[in-house]
Amino acid sequence: MTNKRGQIAVVVMLSAVWAAAVAGAPAETLPAWNSGAAKSAILTFVAEVTDPESDHYVTASDRVAVFDNDGTLWAEQPLFFQFEFVLHRIRQLAPEHPEWRDQQPFQAVLEADREALLEQGLRAFRPLAVAAQTGITHEQYHDLASAFLQTAKHPDLGVRYVDLVYAPMLELVAYLQRAGFKVFIVSAGDSGFIRAYSEQVYGIPRENVIGTSAHYKLRETDAGLAIFRESGSIMPNVLRFKAQNIQLHIGRRPILAVGNSDGDLAMLQYTSDGGGPSLVLLLHHDDANREFGYDEGAEDVLAMAPIHSWHTVSMRNDFSIVFPVPSTD
Amino acid sequence: MTNKRGQIAVVVMLSAVWAAAVAGAPAETLPAWNSGAAKSAILTFVAEVTDPESDHYVTASDRVAVFDNDGTLWAEQPLFFQFEFVLHRIRQLAPEHPEWRDQQPFQAVLEADREALLEQGLRAFRPLAVAAQTGITHEQYHDLASAFLQTAKHPDLGVRYVDLVYAPMLELVAYLQRAGFKVFIVSAGDSGFIRAYSEQVYGIPRENVIGTSAHYKLRETDAGLAIFRESGSIMPNVLRFKAQNIQLHIGRRPILAVGNSDGDLAMLQYTSDGGGPSLVLLLHHDDANREFGYDEGAEDVLAMAPIHSWHTVSMRNDFSIVFPVPSTD
Repeated sequence: MTNKRGQIAVVVMLSAVWAAAVAGAPAETLPAWNSGAAKSAILTFVAEVTDPESDHYVTASDRVAVFDNDGTLWAEQPLFFQFEFVLHRIRQLAPEHPEWRDQQPFQAVLEADREALLEQGLRAFRPLAVAAQTGITHEQYHDLASAFLQTAKHPDLGVRYVDLVYAPMLELVAYLQRAGFKVFIVSAGDSGFIRAYSEQVYGIPRENVIGTSAHYKLRETDAGLAIFRESGSIMPNVLRFKAQNIQLHIGRRPILAVGNSDGDLAMLQYTSDGGGPSLVLLLHHDDANREFGYDEGAEDVLAMAPIHSWHTVSMRNDFSIVFPVPSTD
Repeated sequence: MTNKRGQIAVVVMLSAVWAAAVAGAPAETLPAWNSGAAKSAILTFVAEVTDPESDHYVTASDRVAVFDNDGTLWAEQPLFFQFEFVLHRIRQLAPEHPEWRDQQPFQAVLEADREALLEQGLRAFRPLAVAAQTGITHEQYHDLASAFLQTAKHPDLGVRYVDLVYAPMLELVAYLQRAGFKVFIVSAGDSGFIRAYSEQVYGIPRENVIGTSAHYKLRETDAGLAIFRESGSIMPNVLRFKAQNIQLHIGRRPILAVGNSDGDLAMLQYTSDGGGPSLVLLLHHDDANREFGYDEGAEDVLAMAPIHSWHTVSMRNDFSIVFPVPSTD
């Protein structure tokens, strides 16, 4: 992985230009989106479903929008950021676990052998995630994840993970909420991890986060009843589970869905198969200069988009900026 | 079971008196609640947690209230109303199932042998519920439950089930929502059944209903992808599962909980063990004249209430009316 600090500096400059332009201009809708097919599709869809006179009017209670998280609302390269949190926790916990020094995948973490970790990918993630994320209450986990996200920076880009959210998507979330949409995150990431920053960063309440769930177990403690995160087999919230968990949590079919990878396929198709008005957006990571350029893990969904009349959003062409102006810290 | 039509007539009269009194009076808070310890506790608690100057102030995002449904928001005697829906469906489906004529518990349903059904209780419910509520999409189930609730009437009381909601609880839900609370239903009942009327009757959105969940399965149909309700073992949302599912769906501990039975114990205690301000209300069915008088299934929670400083709400003393004025139909 090349160091991207130079590129991020350019992004910050562009963001500043954009912010200045916006400050003096009359309110433009979705300024972080360039004019084009994707932006037009969004504006037209929202205008229609919120207009009681329109044939495509949808009552507010039915205006459900679902967003994938990693790679859709914020970046996910080279390692999804919850993985970085898990690595951080493993390093924190290492003094209590001398046995990890010669036990994989822990050894690779403690020796900072990122190449080995990246190669092992999700196979390495599972045992690390269990060691890092279980045996504590959900409140403790929340505090640990919050503290990490407050300060931890991306190893290549040198900015905080929470500053690697996509400005156009933040705008879109807020725009939909103003239009009466209920916006949910539907992610393979751990619900507790996303809930540690969803309200402050996305403006999406914790109860609207549908992620992979830890095993929650109510237990008696000295301070009374508490919910613990326990180990055990976990069903990742991907593929058809995304659609099924939408029903579990929301109880109605979305009319708008945004994703970026094959894990979102079922959710996107479930949304567009609803029989009424719907809008499906697929974010294409085609901007190696301002973000990361990759199609891996999105081959199927990119091929399906034109068949289903989904709108492919080109990060390169449709995003006027990628990241918001980072907070000074 | 004695026929209660006479008693309901009295309730309607009282409701009319109450409605008239309220129409000309200055806005009284919670008019369907009599003055007393329970009402005072509610008013004091809400005033404190919403006052930024108070030591017990709670930010709006943390104002989570959870309500049990059967026996807390609406009546549940002599058979919880989802059970009545299941019986209705079994009768509807019977022509396609001649084998049910001599197969229990189906036979008891088709022969209208309510005594036998009541005796079997939940044991009879499970096979009936599977036959009545699976193999269809969640949209189909929603439409069936909605149609039933539109018209079906309580066999003893002669009014619609949706008119057997407790007026004081409807008031409390709306009062909390106005005070910035997010109000959830946490019930052993099927989520899909409650979602069929929660918005119209309680003003609680479908996504705020946490019930027992069917097995949802995404399947391909001629009309595209759809979510089906499938058979399979189901974990009823009672006892510690209520607390665990609160974490799954909401991601934070409630500060207010309302229940009426032993199945709510863990939820109530989890709420009051939070370490911050909390209010727990336990509805006591002590009004055999206006509703039903029973402690069965609530013995433990009634005994625990004083130990935990929970507020027992006496239906007889604390409710100025029980049911709203029924709609004319």
